[in-house]
Amino acid sequence: MKIDLNADMGEGFGSWPMGNDEALLDLVSSANVACGFHAGDPLIMQRTAERAKARGVDLGAHVGFPDRQGFGRRVMQIDTTELVAMVTYQLGALDGIARAVGHRVTHMSFHGALGNMAAADTDLARPLVRAVAAFDPNLLIVSSNSRAIEGAAAQCGIRVATTFLADRAYDDEGLLVSRAKPGAVIHDAGAVAERVERLLRDGVVIAASGKALAMPVKSILLHGDTQGAVELARGIRASIEATGGEIVPVSRLVAGSGGAGG
Amino acid sequence: MKIDLNADMGEGFGSWPMGNDEALLDLVSSANVACGFHAGDPLIMQRTAERAKARGVDLGAHVGFPDRQGFGRRVMQIDTTELVAMVTYQLGALDGIARAVGHRVTHMSFHGALGNMAAADTDLARPLVRAVAAFDPNLLIVSSNSRAIEGAAAQCGIRVATTFLADRAYDDEGLLVSRAKPGAVIHDAGAVAERVERLLRDGVVIAASGKALAMPVKSILLHGDTQGAVELARGIRASIEATGGEIVPVSRLVAGSGGAGG
Amino acid sequence: MKIDLNADMGEGFGSWPMGNDEALLDLVSSANVACGFHAGDPLIMQRTAERAKARGVDLGAHVGFPDRQGFGRRVMQIDTTELVAMVTYQLGALDGIARAVGHRVTHMSFHGALGNMAAADTDLARPLVRAVAAFDPNLLIVSSNSRAIEGAAAQCGIRVATTFLADRAYDDEGLLVSRAKPGAVIHDAGAVAERVERLLRDGVVIAASGKALAMPVKSILLHGDTQGAVELARGIRASIEATGGEIVPVSRLVAGSGGAGG
Amino acid sequence: MKIDLNADMGEGFGSWPMGNDEALLDLVSSANVACGFHAGDPLIMQRTAERAKARGVDLGAHVGFPDRQGFGRRVMQIDTTELVAMVTYQLGALDGIARAVGHRVTHMSFHGALGNMAAADTDLARPLVRAVAAFDPNLLIVSSNSRAIEGAAAQCGIRVATTFLADRAYDDEGLLVSRAKPGAVIHDAGAVAERVERLLRDGVVIAASGKALAMPVKSILLHGDTQGAVELARGIRASIEATGGEIVPVSRLVAGSGGAGG
Repeated sequence: MKIDLNADMGEGFGSWPMGNDEALLDLVSSANVACGFHAGDPLIMQRTAERAKARGVDLGAHVGFPDRQGFGRRVMQIDTTELVAMVTYQLGALDGIARAVGHRVTHMSFHGALGNMAAADTDLARPLVRAVAAFDPNLLIVSSNSRAIEGAAAQCGIRVATTFLADRAYDDEGLLVSRAKPGAVIHDAGAVAERVERLLRDGVVIAASGKALAMPVKSILLHGDTQGAVELARGIRASIEATGGEIVPVSRLVAGSGGAGG
Repeated sequence: MKIDLNADMGEGFGSWPMGNDEALLDLVSSANVACGFHAGDPLIMQRTAERAKARGVDLGAHVGFPDRQGFGRRVMQIDTTELVAMVTYQLGALDGIARAVGHRVTHMSFHGALGNMAAADTDLARPLVRAVAAFDPNLLIVSSNSRAIEGAAAQCGIRVATTFLADRAYDDEGLLVSRAKPGAVIHDAGAVAERVERLLRDGVVIAASGKALAMPVKSILLHGDTQGAVELARGIRASIEATGGEIVPVSRLVAGSGGAGG
Repeated sequence: MKIDLNADMGEGFGSWPMGNDEALLDLVSSANVACGFHAGDPLIMQRTAERAKARGVDLGAHVGFPDRQGFGRRVMQIDTTELVAMVTYQLGALDGIARAVGHRVTHMSFHGALGNMAAADTDLARPLVRAVAAFDPNLLIVSSNSRAIEGAAAQCGIRVATTFLADRAYDDEGLLVSRAKPGAVIHDAGAVAERVERLLRDGVVIAASGKALAMPVKSILLHGDTQGAVELARGIRASIEATGGEIVPVSRLVAGSGGAGG
Repeated sequence: MKIDLNADMGEGFGSWPMGNDEALLDLVSSANVACGFHAGDPLIMQRTAERAKARGVDLGAHVGFPDRQGFGRRVMQIDTTELVAMVTYQLGALDGIARAVGHRVTHMSFHGALGNMAAADTDLARPLVRAVAAFDPNLLIVSSNSRAIEGAAAQCGIRVATTFLADRAYDDEGLLVSRAKPGAVIHDAGAVAERVERLLRDGVVIAASGKALAMPVKSILLHGDTQGAVELARGIRASIEATGGEIVPVSRLVAGSGGAGG
């Protein structure tokens, strides 16, 4: 069994670091890089792109709300037309950085409140996914389980890889429990490892209610800023390898829609 | 004689407009679009790109310091490595927007204080020009008269089109007089028109001191935010046409360095 | 009859002006000055404070969301604790500016989406109003008609002056119709003047549905950025004077809660 | 002998922490709090003010350039008139926060590049110091050794307390060596302790060249973001106490200019 292990990265800003990207990059197969709206800046993006290239790690754009102070985790009501332009802008910015260092962007994902809103709302998911396809139809959208995103992507002919957030609780619909609610983030390393093993073994995630949800995932997501992210990543990597799994960049796991993107 | 008429555009921000882009776009052959650092935002960039495409106007990236409050006109001492990443980021962002609307970026220029600093300092011009070439060697750098930029471009094999700032005073070295100095901006429309005609007729610019400077230019630049920019553009257009000149997008005026960029 | 005529001002940012503050300052009796979050910057605040002082115009803090790009008109879900600190910060910043130019802040109001949210939600109004009282219990809160704000203010012992937005439609509860809806902004100068006269004469506002709402107001608010704001202000001023009214700064219209603030 | 021990604090931003303010607040007698321009935000300012109040630590405003990405350490050429307004804005913002939590601002200092520029340039120091005095003539300016600041303060009748940067190298004029130069920051805890003891014993600082400079200081400054800042603070505190010194908030060390400020 092949699976991608990815992590959010490049989430510092100016003099403020976040997470331990260097260590995580040795453990993951793909990276989602903040594009300067909710976190990150051009220099951090460039360094992260260089490091990802050096390790053969896939580069993805982590696109969020223009709200550094709130780390893109606060709901903002932005006109869809403007949001679409913001998505394109961020994709282009990372693409430029990638090109300059000789790497390339293979995937993207929506961050924080934007991600939660798009995952739960078809009317928002559709124009955002269309914006990604207009930018590059060969990009892969990495998303937590969401019918809205999957439906929109099917309409555009763009591919989606479902990712499992190993340290986040799920509701009965398979959507992420809001961070504002207690128990939304799972801090216990043992519990996280168990969830990963269950998913790899049975293809099943246990919701907060105890309900078992079938979830065909291509990728497991780590949060770079979670306390103990590196140890968590090591544990998950060990769990995958212990079950005979192979960790492979996400772009190699999803059948191409055509040309160069496969 | 063929010459490009270009203008800085997309210099609004959010609810704040600047200049009369709609009217200017009917008069110019190329546009330099602010990329969200000193001015502009994703939505304004997208609209400007769409309008430029609709009129067959060349699209260029106007790259500046990260200083909206100062409109990129304040000197900032930023490490070169970081500045390089900022240049790449801005080029990529506009490129993404252009791609999404079916247009493409043909040229770039450095804005405000960044432009003045690069034009006067070889040690700064070299890495910045290299960053442009690393992003896309077929881009054309549009610059006011500058040995630093031209020398750096020659080293990288990237092309430069010298532009004449019709409403700005020049010193004896052919560099722009700083805006902080009296007389730096020429407000009289007649004087501006005369300067354009002189340049087209004799290839000569009269410096603030009265000295005549030979200046082989490919382009005439208008400032979109100057009071009366539209009237100025009309006057200059009339001057060019009166002397038998033809207004042509800058990318068609400069011999290509190779493939698709010519 | 005495009434205050006030306007939002200082809504430019850096090189981007907004509205015609100079002309409006000759017509109004109080000014609500943006505090650098949704609009305004230190220099604009200082100039507006100096001009208000020179004309004997009351100075108020116009407090909004930290969102220049959206002009504070986009809903943002910010934790109340953090919002409270943002309100205090903005009040303090304008107070500092006022002190430096020898003027003082007599009132405050909530701008845009923050204002609409607070006016409609007691749970939000209470901590925000408490923050104002903690900063200075003698400040006057200028608010469009809102039971939430009035109730919260009564609890804190801080005074409220209800203001009438002459160019905005009201719903049957006396709350402002959202700008996103058609007809939310009244552009016809005649209709605006008629609404003002009706209010002065009968104490009544006609809602969008046609329903007559009793509204005991102390102040009439103009938007500085509305097209034709100066002409509108002149017309309203003429309407007030024609009905024998007197225009007086808001701080002189509301009985003091005690010490120096009356 | 009495001396103030102070530290820069509140230098996080949004989700990004910096330094260990909790631990430092137990060791220092005064805090310089970032005001949201180069670092800090309203919530962080509020929390720092509350904590300082709870421990009887003096609260000061740490005023810097509007450049979060560069942490206020990059030179920016801003018009003096605008800089003055920015200084007032930041002083007022922290003053508002302090008032809301029942604490008060007793001192201020200039951060980073702004501090270095003001310390070295009388023409800049004069208007900035005047701005502080216009805001509150009883504030104390805490500054590294600088004739420019001291001269400007003497003209305004505002008090200055010279602070010693224990972990920074000095040039022969007693000005700080630029961070861009090697050896500008002293990382060795033993060397820092020795410098403090020398200063307390002999009133002398050894410049980078080896030259002994007499420096009558009232305060010793720690950088909150330096690696090992807490251990450094503990060591310095121990050094002071070992030499029989007493650590006292800066506002109690400098004779008042009159009324309430002493």
